Amino acid sequence: MTKRDFVSVEDWSDAEIDALLALATRIKAGEVLGGLERKVMAMVFMDPSLRTRTSFETAMFLHGGHAVVLEPGKSSWTLETEPGAVMDGATVEHIQDAARVLGRYADAVGIRSFPRGTDWSAVREDRIVRDFARFCEKPVINLESSRRHPCQQLADALTLREKLGQPEGKRFVLMWSWHPKALPTAVPASAALAAAHQGMEIVIARPDGYELDPEDTGLIRRIAQERGGEFVHIINDPDEAVVGADVVYVKSWGSLRHFGQAEAESAFRSGLRDWRLTAARLRSTRQGKGLVMHCLPVRRNVEIDDAVLDGPSSVVVDEAENRLHVQRALLLELLGRGSA
Amino acid sequence: MTKRDFVSVEDWSDAEIDALLALATRIKAGEVLGGLERKVMAMVFMDPSLRTRTSFETAMFLHGGHAVVLEPGKSSWTLETEPGAVMDGATVEHIQDAARVLGRYADAVGIRSFPRGTDWSAVREDRIVRDFARFCEKPVINLESSRRHPCQQLADALTLREKLGQPEGKRFVLMWSWHPKALPTAVPASAALAAAHQGMEIVIARPDGYELDPEDTGLIRRIAQERGGEFVHIINDPDEAVVGADVVYVKSWGSLRHFGQAEAESAFRSGLRDWRLTAARLRSTRQGKGLVMHCLPVRRNVEIDDAVLDGPSSVVVDEAENRLHVQRALLLELLGRGSA
Amino acid sequence: MTKRDFVSVEDWSDAEIDALLALATRIKAGEVLGGLERKVMAMVFMDPSLRTRTSFETAMFLHGGHAVVLEPGKSSWTLETEPGAVMDGATVEHIQDAARVLGRYADAVGIRSFPRGTDWSAVREDRIVRDFARFCEKPVINLESSRRHPCQQLADALTLREKLGQPEGKRFVLMWSWHPKALPTAVPASAALAAAHQGMEIVIARPDGYELDPEDTGLIRRIAQERGGEFVHIINDPDEAVVGADVVYVKSWGSLRHFGQAEAESAFRSGLRDWRLTAARLRSTRQGKGLVMHCLPVRRNVEIDDAVLDGPSSVVVDEAENRLHVQRALLLELLGRGSA
Repeated sequence: MTKRDFVSVEDWSDAEIDALLALATRIKAGEVLGGLERKVMAMVFMDPSLRTRTSFETAMFLHGGHAVVLEPGKSSWTLETEPGAVMDGATVEHIQDAARVLGRYADAVGIRSFPRGTDWSAVREDRIVRDFARFCEKPVINLESSRRHPCQQLADALTLREKLGQPEGKRFVLMWSWHPKALPTAVPASAALAAAHQGMEIVIARPDGYELDPEDTGLIRRIAQERGGEFVHIINDPDEAVVGADVVYVKSWGSLRHFGQAEAESAFRSGLRDWRLTAARLRSTRQGKGLVMHCLPVRRNVEIDDAVLDGPSSVVVDEAENRLHVQRALLLELLGRGSA
Repeated sequence: MTKRDFVSVEDWSDAEIDALLALATRIKAGEVLGGLERKVMAMVFMDPSLRTRTSFETAMFLHGGHAVVLEPGKSSWTLETEPGAVMDGATVEHIQDAARVLGRYADAVGIRSFPRGTDWSAVREDRIVRDFARFCEKPVINLESSRRHPCQQLADALTLREKLGQPEGKRFVLMWSWHPKALPTAVPASAALAAAHQGMEIVIARPDGYELDPEDTGLIRRIAQERGGEFVHIINDPDEAVVGADVVYVKSWGSLRHFGQAEAESAFRSGLRDWRLTAARLRSTRQGKGLVMHCLPVRRNVEIDDAVLDGPSSVVVDEAENRLHVQRALLLELLGRGSA
Repeated sequence: MTKRDFVSVEDWSDAEIDALLALATRIKAGEVLGGLERKVMAMVFMDPSLRTRTSFETAMFLHGGHAVVLEPGKSSWTLETEPGAVMDGATVEHIQDAARVLGRYADAVGIRSFPRGTDWSAVREDRIVRDFARFCEKPVINLESSRRHPCQQLADALTLREKLGQPEGKRFVLMWSWHPKALPTAVPASAALAAAHQGMEIVIARPDGYELDPEDTGLIRRIAQERGGEFVHIINDPDEAVVGADVVYVKSWGSLRHFGQAEAESAFRSGLRDWRLTAARLRSTRQGKGLVMHCLPVRRNVEIDDAVLDGPSSVVVDEAENRLHVQRALLLELLGRGSA
């Protein structure tokens, strides 16, 4: 018996993901009860969370299970992530030991670890979540790693299907926005992958220097094309970017050229505050009714204006709600009766 | 269908509150089981808690439900509370988005937010909890706001009824005490309101400059008089204050004249350390047997002496226990089978 | 009806501990379900935790109960531990009030409090956990105090029995190791007591100045001798220490001569980095196959080398897993149907 992890959507087959989304739809309709009795999920949060924590804890409970929340460096010990480290510094426990032990107490273990350090060539390997999965004998769920946020990706895929009916061929614009901090690229990559899997026409709108990792861009292009979609890269114009969009997915991320260099990145970003979704820009989407998506938390009036977020085009709260439904499906698939 | 919030006791009718307290009494007697199966409460703690957290989490569990605990700025994102804010600073998520999203995951949402800032004229509007209730589509429970602690008020009402039998006309002294910090006025206002609803004779004993908000004092007076009680204001003498008291409710709070100005308030308070409930003062209560109440946490030997807290007059632990029973009643009323 | 606490293993009779371990074995085999329905455990963590928190929370859930986690100074109020304190400083709530209140909400209360201060003669009284038990009307479980970690001791006892079959007369080496911090002595004392109860031959290997408290050493010797074991004290040689060992329990602790004086202790410890379990030393254990134990978290390549921890002799993960099973037994004994 081999265990099953959920580190990235692309580790699973299309048929499996389609089945997950179909199950999520049945769950949302109230058709699925129980299935996780006496099951425990442990969640390791190396970074903060509102939606992920609440939705997983709720998901486990609703099906009869329980989630334990651990916060290394706060309620729990600080974790060392470097293999072979001589641990004579500040970190108290090696993540491989945490993974092994939690795998004995829990039936599944989730881990959130945002990118750290200054070396993108190392961070891009997404080693922390992959090592964790390797050392843990139970299914490991990625709660957002350096490269991917697969639960967000599932929720985005469900939201696109629900809101668009037939997403194929429709125009999905991933629009970079200014933000006071250099954020990770896991969500924008995952969101564009969600749209690519739906066979949409993908536009990535971002200033020069804000390219995603080439591997991600290549993967988005390949998957979009395989599904009958397209990939159009538009550079350096937030007004033009959203013209005719069926969906505008707003998201900020840091320049990988300045990865981990907060000051340099901040200076590089300084002239770009106009990259923001305004009501005026929203009017240039298809029939002025393009959908507005965002993974949340959103910086109001910095990434997206209040008028847009609080208007009829915004589906950000429905998108957040879908986290719950897709995760219930995921947990039932990984841990439910009949699984394993 | 409109949803029901519990932001202040006075938002509910007397008959509704009486029914809640009657249900709490039946719950305390072990007569009520179940009713919250598959129900989730999310609690947002912008400030610390021991009783509130433990008693709500226990209450949900005992009836088959589950509580999720979030701590903005610690395990969860820091929350912006200003409407229309341009969020380019330290706060990561707007409280209105948190309210909307949590309303999708949970069946009820509690929020604790102590007063912040230096402008009492703004803080007194109690906007944070009221906005939260407005943006959340599920029942919102006030876990202590700038102005009210309605769950404590319910527990205090139950305690007064249990300990006094017929509280009407008996003498309730809200006694200010010195404290190393300028504390909020939510608890003293709520405690005096609890006594006023019981038709008691209300005395507020505090040094000059420690008046409660005039709106609170007016409300306490009006409710006491409507219930056949009285309102007597005694100024500036902790010895005289407690003479003949049936109940002494000890509580410290900061001077609203110096609201949010820690140093100025501390200086203003500096000569007032004698405002403390001692064994000698307790002897001057009715037959030397006046009940001693406090919401806890209490600063021992600063607000109340050990000899008093550990003596037979103190009912502070029973009062804390009653938090559990009234909250079980509240949750069953808001979320239980047959509610909504 | 008197309540039952679990502050130290030695407070219970041998027969009771044997029954607990037998029950843990049945639980581990999957033979025991339910028993904690509608039961609540509150856990007060004055210090961090991964295993204790996760295993107790899981234990309560697996038998139908629920655990509430409190973190004084983080999510909950800072606790004063000094009896009679005039609380005009930073601590907000006295631990005796927390004990009383939690005893009203929960059916059992756990507390973790590592040693603090600079006066070992006071700290060694283990007053915090004992006072907590005195003021709480429900069973109190020691989650690691200044002197003892009885849940670890139970897990270690179960592990020794499982791995050795007949531990009597076999050689148990408690080996001190260097560590960047001066750690408490609760675990080494408890681990040696676990082995002593099994009638093993006990060796304590540590540099001069790293004696355990004489009372602990005396107790270990007495119990070992009563059970037909022996007590051999070896000083100042990590190579010699492990020769012929059936079990090497590696653990660091601070010098009680320099208790609470971080800088002095650090200087005292500075030449001792060679005290580490290496693969070479492991080869000198009995047939090169001595078992390696550690309570975790472990400083890899500082206390124990990767090659040892990841090799076949290491049972540290099984040992951690056993925390869950012994605690399930303990909770069923203290709170389960038929108990009390």
